[in-house]
Amino acid sequence: MSRITAPLADLYSSIRSDLREVARVFDEELVSDFPFVDDLCDRVRAYRGKMLRPALLLLAGKTCGSVSSNHHTLGAVIEMVHVATLVHDDVLDEADERRGQEPINSVEGNVAAVLLGDYLISHAYHLCSSLKDQTAARLIGATTNAVCEGELLQNRHRGDTNLSESLYFEIIKRKTGALTATACELGAICAGADAEVVDSFRSFGLSVGVAFQIVDDMLDIRGARQEVGKSLGLDFSDGKLTLPTIHCLANAGPETAAALRSAVLGKTTAGRDCLLRWLAETDSLAYATSVALEYIGRARSALEILPPSDARSSLTAIAEFIIQRRL
Amino acid sequence: MSRITAPLADLYSSIRSDLREVARVFDEELVSDFPFVDDLCDRVRAYRGKMLRPALLLLAGKTCGSVSSNHHTLGAVIEMVHVATLVHDDVLDEADERRGQEPINSVEGNVAAVLLGDYLISHAYHLCSSLKDQTAARLIGATTNAVCEGELLQNRHRGDTNLSESLYFEIIKRKTGALTATACELGAICAGADAEVVDSFRSFGLSVGVAFQIVDDMLDIRGARQEVGKSLGLDFSDGKLTLPTIHCLANAGPETAAALRSAVLGKTTAGRDCLLRWLAETDSLAYATSVALEYIGRARSALEILPPSDARSSLTAIAEFIIQRRL
Repeated sequence: MSRITAPLADLYSSIRSDLREVARVFDEELVSDFPFVDDLCDRVRAYRGKMLRPALLLLAGKTCGSVSSNHHTLGAVIEMVHVATLVHDDVLDEADERRGQEPINSVEGNVAAVLLGDYLISHAYHLCSSLKDQTAARLIGATTNAVCEGELLQNRHRGDTNLSESLYFEIIKRKTGALTATACELGAICAGADAEVVDSFRSFGLSVGVAFQIVDDMLDIRGARQEVGKSLGLDFSDGKLTLPTIHCLANAGPETAAALRSAVLGKTTAGRDCLLRWLAETDSLAYATSVALEYIGRARSALEILPPSDARSSLTAIAEFIIQRRL
Repeated sequence: MSRITAPLADLYSSIRSDLREVARVFDEELVSDFPFVDDLCDRVRAYRGKMLRPALLLLAGKTCGSVSSNHHTLGAVIEMVHVATLVHDDVLDEADERRGQEPINSVEGNVAAVLLGDYLISHAYHLCSSLKDQTAARLIGATTNAVCEGELLQNRHRGDTNLSESLYFEIIKRKTGALTATACELGAICAGADAEVVDSFRSFGLSVGVAFQIVDDMLDIRGARQEVGKSLGLDFSDGKLTLPTIHCLANAGPETAAALRSAVLGKTTAGRDCLLRWLAETDSLAYATSVALEYIGRARSALEILPPSDARSSLTAIAEFIIQRRL
């Protein structure tokens, strides 16, 4: 957890020991009979990064009541699902950097990376099945169904220069929003919150996840590699439209739109400087920022049915931090 | 189910309507909001093939008592896990044929195949979470953990010409045996069998799975492509030792062993005729057949604690059929 620095470390201060417990459960679940499997898992531990999803789950629990061992288990389950998607994403993206280090696929090969992702997802469900009832398992199954559908949809529209903004949101709600929504929902459910509060936490988590993905997509365009700690510009070179490029295509003059379209389709090569110039013409990065801010506003509103508390403040502060994040 | 022909169709006669119900539950679970996802799932339906695992589960249930809707659900879960592993295996093997048709990866690309495998495994757990308690989910989670470990272990030892027979068994017990064992165990559990009977069904399923994998590996060497309906000779060209090649390396004279070793390592190219000649020198295919027969014998013995019945006879007949199978 040494990687979690201020201001996030401060926002996590009330859940520090709970996050340590989540990490312990996570590690314990992945112990294998085979030392080389343990070595592979050691490598993915770095993917855990900022433990954002378990933190949301724990703080949702704290906001609604108290944190129990079910929260720790589910925090580990959610993070394991998240790490599994990162491992498979790296195979799909052919990324060459993740959290400042070489990803599994480029060190161990794509075969090991596919299998390791499968191993992680299997252990996530296995860990979840240790809980007494099926509520969480049902919700997590539905969530991973949605995540996979979002990824399939995104893959289907790779190189589709007509991708609409609404379809972009359908994709990111599933591929990113669903898991943060479920993290927050489970945090509330396990603290015994009533249905209305549970729904509010789901809305909160969904909006946070969507804002998170918009910012992540923007970082792919303009981030500094050493700060973001992963390969950049992959979306663009891979025919994947994100909010700024969708906005630019819809609003640029015919020449710029045609040039951007050709570059996305890989018919011409264009560097990041070129892309930034096109996006500046239509103010598309500012537009994407404003949409992300709107989602953060929705997230904040969703929690207003709850009385003010330190935990609630930490949740909204984390949501706001995301906007200026270098997570 | 039109693909299931005699003698298997006869052995399945008492569970025909149950297998139809398993197929219905399977199809219903995979319905997506997106027609293109349904189209992808239509393609994997062909992978269902002979529905061997659901058949074992249902017949185990019938042997111990009666078949309920839990059996149908779990039959669909087990088959979905199995199909998911086939889809990911095809990515890993870069196969160009599966059940007589092009596999997903070569038509839709590896990215879609990885995602589709993930989608199937997610739905398998989601479907499993519809059951009332966690017993099956716990067992299935532990089983998929073992399957992944088996696959990781196999991948680890690709090109390892020192792979021992005992490690080969460790691999196939996990990657194939675990799922057939769990299918049989769950069939018995859901019919209310006592612990000793449940254990016997697990042993039966494990032995059947191991025998099945030995025969499958032998078919890769000597099968006729049009009969087996998948790409052949992949194991050999991919540096994957199986029982006949392990036996040959251990028992051949130094010249043959060196030639086989070089071919497995990809240092020299050798056709199937060459491989068959080397294996003939040490009678290694006959040896592998005898080991598979030994496992079928163990499977038969495991069920001897049960009174004779039509369902029990069907189970042992299916186990024996596997040896001369062209599944």
